[in-house]
Amino acid sequence: MGDTIFVRHGRLHYFAREALKRLRLPATHASKVGDALIAADLAGMEGEGMRRLPFFASRISSGLINHAADIKIVQQDEATVLIDGDNGMGHLVAGRSMEIAMALAKKYGVAAVSARQSNDFGMAGYYARMALAEQMIGIVVSNAVPVMLPTYGKTPMLGSNPLAIAIPAAEDDAPFVLDVATTATSRPELEDALRRKEKIPFGLAVDESGKPTDDPRKALDAMRLLPLGSRPETGSHKGYGLALAIDILTGVLSGGAFGQQLASAEGKHQGVAGIGHFVLVIRLKAFSPWIRFRNRIKDMTHQLTSAPAEGAPRIYYPGESEFAIEQERRATGIPLDSNVASELEGLAKHLDIHDSWKHLVEGKK
Amino acid sequence: MGDTIFVRHGRLHYFAREALKRLRLPATHASKVGDALIAADLAGMEGEGMRRLPFFASRISSGLINHAADIKIVQQDEATVLIDGDNGMGHLVAGRSMEIAMALAKKYGVAAVSARQSNDFGMAGYYARMALAEQMIGIVVSNAVPVMLPTYGKTPMLGSNPLAIAIPAAEDDAPFVLDVATTATSRPELEDALRRKEKIPFGLAVDESGKPTDDPRKALDAMRLLPLGSRPETGSHKGYGLALAIDILTGVLSGGAFGQQLASAEGKHQGVAGIGHFVLVIRLKAFSPWIRFRNRIKDMTHQLTSAPAEGAPRIYYPGESEFAIEQERRATGIPLDSNVASELEGLAKHLDIHDSWKHLVEGKK
Repeated sequence: MGDTIFVRHGRLHYFAREALKRLRLPATHASKVGDALIAADLAGMEGEGMRRLPFFASRISSGLINHAADIKIVQQDEATVLIDGDNGMGHLVAGRSMEIAMALAKKYGVAAVSARQSNDFGMAGYYARMALAEQMIGIVVSNAVPVMLPTYGKTPMLGSNPLAIAIPAAEDDAPFVLDVATTATSRPELEDALRRKEKIPFGLAVDESGKPTDDPRKALDAMRLLPLGSRPETGSHKGYGLALAIDILTGVLSGGAFGQQLASAEGKHQGVAGIGHFVLVIRLKAFSPWIRFRNRIKDMTHQLTSAPAEGAPRIYYPGESEFAIEQERRATGIPLDSNVASELEGLAKHLDIHDSWKHLVEGKK
Repeated sequence: MGDTIFVRHGRLHYFAREALKRLRLPATHASKVGDALIAADLAGMEGEGMRRLPFFASRISSGLINHAADIKIVQQDEATVLIDGDNGMGHLVAGRSMEIAMALAKKYGVAAVSARQSNDFGMAGYYARMALAEQMIGIVVSNAVPVMLPTYGKTPMLGSNPLAIAIPAAEDDAPFVLDVATTATSRPELEDALRRKEKIPFGLAVDESGKPTDDPRKALDAMRLLPLGSRPETGSHKGYGLALAIDILTGVLSGGAFGQQLASAEGKHQGVAGIGHFVLVIRLKAFSPWIRFRNRIKDMTHQLTSAPAEGAPRIYYPGESEFAIEQERRATGIPLDSNVASELEGLAKHLDIHDSWKHLVEGKK
């Protein structure tokens, strides 16, 4: 582990855009994918940010992700739409799904969009948050490469299928943004523990032989994560059930891949991913005047955070700490650890965009 | 702990209906509440079944639940409705909400109904399951009396807010019915452990002093339950965040009670509950022909249950074991343990419906 450099998020976005353009994405698409990646880095969810660009670049280069995807509506009811992502970048498919759902929710009060033939979209909360600009509630779920053991199972059958719910808050407050994996932990969290040379608590993962482990290396090698709830007696069937419901809503319902069919969604030289998303939008005003809602949600967060346990840090509501991290990183820059920096430098070399790399690191702080 | 008697579910329903009629509910309402209570007993979720009738009877008698509730639509958009439950039985308000959502989803593909001024509705999965008859997906959530500690909190701020998702299955299979509390455990589970004189695992609840406990008596006395995920390092912020999202969707959005305002929802001589529900329905055919969906969900459940761990029972999907219990109880009767039986007998005496009680226990097996 070497030094961490801090770079301006605008320059990091420029670098992402140039790289993706060089990978033959149209400029507007390259910019949108860059937005989603940078949003993850700004929110402190680096595992879904620029660290993933080399992975996506490799899949685009080898044709496993379609750089020229034509995202299409294949079925439309009144307030529902089914989308085929044409194997394009998940960030684009999810973004488009959310735009369509928001337009429909404006008319119908609620709308649902399901998307198939997509790819890993990164940070679920980014798409859910899009709804906030229109005083709507955004709910976003996706399936993913299987890493989760069902309760009583020995083989990964489901992804760490993310669930994000974004709800508008009063003007000065951080919006409510729940953005969670349905596994007890996730690959980026394990990677962080490994980097910091820390043990992990039991209850997150098992090793290759199926035994509980506190070693992040063994957990990463096996990639058999436990559902949220960890063990049967502490409610693992709930995390498992939730992940399964998400896979049905995204994969089974949409006509895309589901369960073990998603095994090819990770790895550099395997098949097409076939990932699905499901997006739901609710217009606040269909249920409440904005001012009333605003005052009530402010009451709620004040209630909630009023009684921390002795010796505990303060109580946060979902999205609050990410919001604070974002404020800070907008001012002081985004940290890139030396491994990530050298991978991105390698990518720049490979794509022959060394000027963009220089522009990025010259702007470092 | 005395003997358990087994009674026919039809006779138990008759008893519930007679009791509720005596409490001045209209006959159709009494019958519908009976349906919901018996469904819980049939599914093996006794904690939400007839065991709760004396509690509801007491609240109706003392005017804390309105026996003559006039459930009204107060706001309607295209595919959304806001309902005022007029402080009626939660079973009626939730059932009505689901009926309205299903009718709207038939037209729009998706629909959302929010209800305020309601009461504890028992088993969330019962209402979600209503959608199955029309090949729809039903999603039902509710807020509830505060028993959950937020992550890092010392005071219960949220309910064990239930989440239910019902999804149609192939004809011969159990439908997918996820029906879970967002706490790691729930009051009925603690009561069961106490009755069986068993310890509970750490990670479910704390005692009055805030210390983790494995004693169900101490857990019930304190009623400070941990969120699904148990501890911060195993993801308790996810269960807490989910419960909070549910309280916002049901309580804050609807204009009903939320957070600590719900403290009067339990206890016999306190205030009106003000509980809220949120119901979402998705028409399968808006996304997939039925036959395709049917075949795909069958594939999914076969995949899932194919690889149990050594020494583990088979892998279940949500709703499967409840479905099996229901088949059995329809044939052999519903078990009433002696405490519950004597409470119901006491209620029969109090309401002067002793004939209904005799009819019930004469039919026992």
